[in-house]
Amino acid sequence: MNVLGHITQRGRLRRGRLTRHNAPQPVPVYRHRKIPVYDLLGDAALTRIEDQADWILDTIGVEFRGDETALALFATAGARVDGARVRFEPGLARHLCTTAPAEFRLHSRDATNSVDLGGDNLVLMPGYGAPFVTDLDRGRRYGTLDDFRNFVKLAYMSPWLHHSGGTVVEPTDVAVNKRHLDMMLAHLTLSTKPFMGGVTSPGRAQDSTDMARLVFGAEFMDRNAVMQANINVNSPLVYDDTMSGALRVYAAANQCVCISPAIFAGAMGPLSPAAVAAQTLAEAMVGIALSQLVRPGCPAVFGSFHSSMNLKTGALTFGSPEANMTTMAMSQLGRRLGVPVRSGGGQVTASNAADGQAMQDSADAMWATLLSGGHQVWHAAGWLEGGLVMSYEKFVMDLDHCGAMLKMLQGFGVEDEDFGRDAYHEAGPGENFLSTGHTLRHYTTANFQPRIPEAGPYETWNENGAQTVDQRATARWQQMLAAYEPPDMQDNMRAALMEFVAERKAAMPDEWY
Amino acid sequence: MNVLGHITQRGRLRRGRLTRHNAPQPVPVYRHRKIPVYDLLGDAALTRIEDQADWILDTIGVEFRGDETALALFATAGARVDGARVRFEPGLARHLCTTAPAEFRLHSRDATNSVDLGGDNLVLMPGYGAPFVTDLDRGRRYGTLDDFRNFVKLAYMSPWLHHSGGTVVEPTDVAVNKRHLDMMLAHLTLSTKPFMGGVTSPGRAQDSTDMARLVFGAEFMDRNAVMQANINVNSPLVYDDTMSGALRVYAAANQCVCISPAIFAGAMGPLSPAAVAAQTLAEAMVGIALSQLVRPGCPAVFGSFHSSMNLKTGALTFGSPEANMTTMAMSQLGRRLGVPVRSGGGQVTASNAADGQAMQDSADAMWATLLSGGHQVWHAAGWLEGGLVMSYEKFVMDLDHCGAMLKMLQGFGVEDEDFGRDAYHEAGPGENFLSTGHTLRHYTTANFQPRIPEAGPYETWNENGAQTVDQRATARWQQMLAAYEPPDMQDNMRAALMEFVAERKAAMPDEWY
Repeated sequence: MNVLGHITQRGRLRRGRLTRHNAPQPVPVYRHRKIPVYDLLGDAALTRIEDQADWILDTIGVEFRGDETALALFATAGARVDGARVRFEPGLARHLCTTAPAEFRLHSRDATNSVDLGGDNLVLMPGYGAPFVTDLDRGRRYGTLDDFRNFVKLAYMSPWLHHSGGTVVEPTDVAVNKRHLDMMLAHLTLSTKPFMGGVTSPGRAQDSTDMARLVFGAEFMDRNAVMQANINVNSPLVYDDTMSGALRVYAAANQCVCISPAIFAGAMGPLSPAAVAAQTLAEAMVGIALSQLVRPGCPAVFGSFHSSMNLKTGALTFGSPEANMTTMAMSQLGRRLGVPVRSGGGQVTASNAADGQAMQDSADAMWATLLSGGHQVWHAAGWLEGGLVMSYEKFVMDLDHCGAMLKMLQGFGVEDEDFGRDAYHEAGPGENFLSTGHTLRHYTTANFQPRIPEAGPYETWNENGAQTVDQRATARWQQMLAAYEPPDMQDNMRAALMEFVAERKAAMPDEWY
Repeated sequence: MNVLGHITQRGRLRRGRLTRHNAPQPVPVYRHRKIPVYDLLGDAALTRIEDQADWILDTIGVEFRGDETALALFATAGARVDGARVRFEPGLARHLCTTAPAEFRLHSRDATNSVDLGGDNLVLMPGYGAPFVTDLDRGRRYGTLDDFRNFVKLAYMSPWLHHSGGTVVEPTDVAVNKRHLDMMLAHLTLSTKPFMGGVTSPGRAQDSTDMARLVFGAEFMDRNAVMQANINVNSPLVYDDTMSGALRVYAAANQCVCISPAIFAGAMGPLSPAAVAAQTLAEAMVGIALSQLVRPGCPAVFGSFHSSMNLKTGALTFGSPEANMTTMAMSQLGRRLGVPVRSGGGQVTASNAADGQAMQDSADAMWATLLSGGHQVWHAAGWLEGGLVMSYEKFVMDLDHCGAMLKMLQGFGVEDEDFGRDAYHEAGPGENFLSTGHTLRHYTTANFQPRIPEAGPYETWNENGAQTVDQRATARWQQMLAAYEPPDMQDNMRAALMEFVAERKAAMPDEWY
């Protein structure tokens, strides 16, 4: 069958393959979930998990190491503090989370790029924290500030990512104590999508919020969230003072803290999905509670980073059925807590290449994340090797998949026009619908269109070098970077940011730890 | 972190990687769905789709070309017959389907391999109908009877496929009019899993049921289904006499007919998911109705083969969001019809290689199929190039994914032991759970274990040739074939089958069409 023939007969098709792929297309931006969420667990199972979280907090407790301020806040709130250990009566931690908003906005300096967290809103973001990058031209290597900037640009250009993420790659060519300055500068100048600030010390958190104030204004930021912080728990059941200190800086600034326990099942907690879900809930509730004790009403996200391991070989695994079920449970638990969910998952894999395993793991984890109702999806693009590597090729492959998943989350229509009755009067039994009016009215917009070129028929594909999809992806990210144009920014604002960075850099010697 | 170290310290781990991978493991066989189905659509949307199906059958109708018997049966049942065209008052076709059982068994000659269709039962099957095969050693080539036998053996050996399928590949080295005999012989002797018979003419259907009777007995088969037939509709809205003739042979024999409309959205029907779902329902109800007119109570499956196209290039696409939504809708429509669902989907892709696209498409389609409640999954293993090719490597990659999906469909426990409270008394905040008693009690069975070796750390993987997962899969299928042992069969039964095949082959000259 030759669809092309049918459609070109009516002159609807533009000439040539490259023209089509390069031509700017109006791309819809999907920000909302319009299909129902999937509930893996019933109320009884969820209640058992919540009871286990309460048991952990009451019997075992959580340690806040080296943070007397946090310990004092918890003591005042009624928790039992014993050295660094904090224990909570059943229900207390959950009660302390009640002032956290169920839905809130992360403001962009370009209002069209502001995002809402919670409810039916969807916020997809790139990978976070990889020390390495890879692409098929240059191979695997340490990430640099140039790479960091590239991924901020790519995220800015994609309609399928709503947020720039944070440490999209580690800029390893910049001193550790100065990286946050260059990263903030890139986020603020190269993109207008929401972003995350530094968390590797309370001082770097302070620098990050200070830089944001140069763009958004101190008064606006005191009332509105414009940035997020990734507060990782040192699971099991420990907050170190770096993380709890950074948490307090962001919460005091009324900026969003995302509390992410980090649990590999069997290593940082018991190996079962039920146990991981309960422990994640326990650890996250305590962090959210701290944010509310610092500043009631401060926006918080119930985060999670978890996965499974091959417990026979010790290898980390991603996208496994056990991890995906945990992800689905976490979305439900977060909704019951009433706090937006950054559910574990995203497009994650342990694979070393953007191969079949990588994309299968990623697809599996993404279905679990999105169908279960996760609000914010970290690691939605680029992640390889269990997060050690950001891959340029996988980044654009993941973008296509983000778009496809977002399209699915829109559902489909059942209005009269969707049924195309007129087409059956044009094309009866045994006839071809390609040239019916209904097909011609809708063929350019009906289907999601990936941006990596399709393989085409075997013979042509084989003659052209039998390129797998990752090989076809190289041209796509290069094309995107070549087409990048920075957003506008007032000269005095840019100058103030540059000056801030220069002054802070000059004020301290390079440190590499 | 070194999990291996933790566990080997207690001497629980077997020595060496290959030993582990080759050692026989007791593998659970998952036959039931234990988690809820996902309902994409609400009642109002489903009713609109059903109304559209009724409209199609009432206003446009379906043609039965060259099958006077079928036309007469429909006329007697109250349909309006006009030449080859059959039209149905709204509700009539659905009414004629009511005698089809909601759940039934396909019997194996080894009762442990019998499968149930409908309810919470899961039946996964290999790909169907590919004229080509490929593997990384020998490349892409026409399929042969040897390949056919290999895939029957591989399906027999896998715990993740419940059914051998039918024409798993086209044995192109056998005359077209004799293929069904060799395929039936392979299904009946090399495996004990349920299978499908020939449908390419009513006579070949008759041969297929006759051969099955040599194994199962005529009396048993008159009361019980032991085989299935793939009745493809010549969509849009046409049954040719080959298909309706074969349908009547199987229905008269009380064997299972699976009615599968075959619709590429925009070509064989309007391009929207709602329209494809409605037309599939209309076409399938008519076929199921015919089976019930031939023999009320005959087991039938509400099938579907559908996908989307890139309507700008004419390329077929698989695993697209539009196709996956259609798949999800079909599962719901089939449940409302009360007939087991072979939902479109499976592990399908248009990719020419078992690359990232192939596994992403396949994973996406499989989630849509299984989460929405499809009972029977065709094309769950091996499919490439839109069904033109069965890939040995993708077959075993898909097997691993079938296992992972089946494991997920079991859900997870929330009993006391699942929470591992004792582990928290052994390992407190900041400590490692790898050597807790809870981890050691469960680490060998907690997680699904793929059978293709994992990549391992980047450095080792790179030194060993940086093999992508498809490259690592070659050894796996070769190992499975080397380990294959045929099931027992009585000598006289085998002899009777051989004799039947020899006599039928001798009775007709080779035909290649």
